[in-house]
Amino acid sequence: VIRLTRAYRFCASHRLHSASLSEAANREVYGKCNNPYGHGHNYQLEVTVAGPVDAASGKVVDVPRLDGLVESSVLRHFDHQDLNAVPEFAELVPTSENLVMVIEQRLRQAWFAGAGPRLENVRLHETRRNRFDLRL
Amino acid sequence: VIRLTRAYRFCASHRLHSASLSEAANREVYGKCNNPYGHGHNYQLEVTVAGPVDAASGKVVDVPRLDGLVESSVLRHFDHQDLNAVPEFAELVPTSENLVMVIEQRLRQAWFAGAGPRLENVRLHETRRNRFDLRL
Amino acid sequence: VIRLTRAYRFCASHRLHSASLSEAANREVYGKCNNPYGHGHNYQLEVTVAGPVDAASGKVVDVPRLDGLVESSVLRHFDHQDLNAVPEFAELVPTSENLVMVIEQRLRQAWFAGAGPRLENVRLHETRRNRFDLRL
Amino acid sequence: VIRLTRAYRFCASHRLHSASLSEAANREVYGKCNNPYGHGHNYQLEVTVAGPVDAASGKVVDVPRLDGLVESSVLRHFDHQDLNAVPEFAELVPTSENLVMVIEQRLRQAWFAGAGPRLENVRLHETRRNRFDLRL
Amino acid sequence: VIRLTRAYRFCASHRLHSASLSEAANREVYGKCNNPYGHGHNYQLEVTVAGPVDAASGKVVDVPRLDGLVESSVLRHFDHQDLNAVPEFAELVPTSENLVMVIEQRLRQAWFAGAGPRLENVRLHETRRNRFDLRL
Amino acid sequence: VIRLTRAYRFCASHRLHSASLSEAANREVYGKCNNPYGHGHNYQLEVTVAGPVDAASGKVVDVPRLDGLVESSVLRHFDHQDLNAVPEFAELVPTSENLVMVIEQRLRQAWFAGAGPRLENVRLHETRRNRFDLRL
Repeated sequence: VIRLTRAYRFCASHRLHSASLSEAANREVYGKCNNPYGHGHNYQLEVTVAGPVDAASGKVVDVPRLDGLVESSVLRHFDHQDLNAVPEFAELVPTSENLVMVIEQRLRQAWFAGAGPRLENVRLHETRRNRFDLRL
Repeated sequence: VIRLTRAYRFCASHRLHSASLSEAANREVYGKCNNPYGHGHNYQLEVTVAGPVDAASGKVVDVPRLDGLVESSVLRHFDHQDLNAVPEFAELVPTSENLVMVIEQRLRQAWFAGAGPRLENVRLHETRRNRFDLRL
Repeated sequence: VIRLTRAYRFCASHRLHSASLSEAANREVYGKCNNPYGHGHNYQLEVTVAGPVDAASGKVVDVPRLDGLVESSVLRHFDHQDLNAVPEFAELVPTSENLVMVIEQRLRQAWFAGAGPRLENVRLHETRRNRFDLRL
Repeated sequence: VIRLTRAYRFCASHRLHSASLSEAANREVYGKCNNPYGHGHNYQLEVTVAGPVDAASGKVVDVPRLDGLVESSVLRHFDHQDLNAVPEFAELVPTSENLVMVIEQRLRQAWFAGAGPRLENVRLHETRRNRFDLRL
Repeated sequence: VIRLTRAYRFCASHRLHSASLSEAANREVYGKCNNPYGHGHNYQLEVTVAGPVDAASGKVVDVPRLDGLVESSVLRHFDHQDLNAVPEFAELVPTSENLVMVIEQRLRQAWFAGAGPRLENVRLHETRRNRFDLRL
Repeated sequence: VIRLTRAYRFCASHRLHSASLSEAANREVYGKCNNPYGHGHNYQLEVTVAGPVDAASGKVVDVPRLDGLVESSVLRHFDHQDLNAVPEFAELVPTSENLVMVIEQRLRQAWFAGAGPRLENVRLHETRRNRFDLRL
């Protein structure tokens, strides 16, 4: 089994505010990220695919197909957008923890049918100091 | 003369839309960046200071003082904010070109009086692929 | 389960010399690192925390609390210090292998009581070419 | 158990072309990489070694010995070379998937006899966007 | 005047061999790079454009137009190619010094007519350790 | 004229303490860096060489010769050392400003005689946030 990890980038804004918390609790929990005007990040997304190597092609996955899947299910909807306007975040706070779970759901629903490689890990870098992993 | 370049980071959102352009021209000029909900970036700011080295301390500038100046004149107002809500951008499009000019003005107005080091260059990285320099 | 990895930096000096080895063996085992005057590194520390995402806040851990814990138990004692003067290294050689174990002990002793997230991995980058992991 | 990951670099060229595929299939599967004149990469190789820490030296492995092993079994044969001319690729397509498997075989055959540390993972970065892992 | 520097990448192979040097001199001057089978690099190209900021758009250059110019004059011909097969290198050794001069010529010939921004610097990173600048 | 910038690394420790300042002033000016036990850094040194490209070799400088010059005049004396023990720092505080000046003097004294390339800039990265330039 070989694992291929491929990196993607998208730029988006968000505001962290939870409807289930008071105004004061929102300010305490999210600090500067609760600012009503929002702020933004250059996110880096890393998708890890695991599987056997095809004997004829020497590849674990067709990279253009993987790119198309990530583009159509995630990047097109998130890049240069306000995350709070993405449907899943109508009631969910767009923290990076929730964001990596939403991305994993979208990738899983769009994933290759049949005998293709397995989606093994979704990693999201929010800044140079924080990254989030969801291992399947 | 020695040059010290010190790096700072801030996260902010913005929307690119020029009041002096038609809707169609805005979409053509700014593309995805014209999306009404905005998007965001992890900006990296590099401030270059030039001057002689002080014989007693062996330093070109007192770094905590420089940090305080950059924090109070720029970072506090821009980090985790929507750039469109910063006063200078009430009528000015917050492109990185305009942003680096606004930052330079703020730094210059707050700069050390007297015989201190000179502000020589302001560099702004918008993404890993684009950086903007204003040389004084 | 989501994993958050957060990066910290500290600068420290050390000298590698083992009391249980002869002078000749010290020179052979540690090479340039055995130089009696010591040398130093910009270390990067990555702390990985794993746990469920809190439904109200959308977070796996309160990052300012994590930062405070790492600061008070590790960074305050190691940053801009000589590692050989840290208590644990009175008789232990401050190799990065031993350093990552000492850091893990300090983090574990200071760790959040109760139902908080789990400390899962401690990673230490000594240089761009060498990193050390201790998985719990 | 401590894991040490050490990074190496080598520059090499290759052409992706599979004898078991038609000309048309080769162009479709490999795209630009099927260009008959080849192209090249700055590869980064990361070797992860796992084991207990030696009580006397405080080390998991003797790094100069590890470097010698990687140099003599891999780097000397691959750096500044055309991968298609390396014996293993006489009939095998030098994709990064196959390359990481060939490197792992070479490292395993040259590995330390006896009670030394275990080879745990071989990672190959082809570009900044693609990396490949073979976990043992 | 604002300077925008935009980064591009291309992967290519080359062999260093000068027709005006003897075989022995070629081996001495180019070392491993003279290997007849060639080797390759992930090159990073940085194009610096200088000019006034347009009052209406807040931009120094239209980035999609710049990207199109760099793509059609340079990247399309060099990416995933053997540099020795590029016309300019029929008799010229494809060192990075010569490569940066060839790229600058191609950019200059394709440059925006009229009142557009000025091409100010072309920078080529061959590896993480070597970069080459041609300032206009 | 082409500029080649080549990067080198060295690890060293230092303590910042000026004999011409009082104890209190030392603590105020240098903060944590005045700690008597010292601390250390992974320094990155970038040497920029400028000159015409040799028509036969297509090169601006012979890189192995440049490497030998930097190794014998700087790296051998600074790598894995305590900077305070380097002769120039017997009475000079080893700030990065003074360090880049000492390195430039050593390079200039060892520089190629005759018609070789010119030493144009010496850059020293102390950490990811601070870099120092001495332009000749």
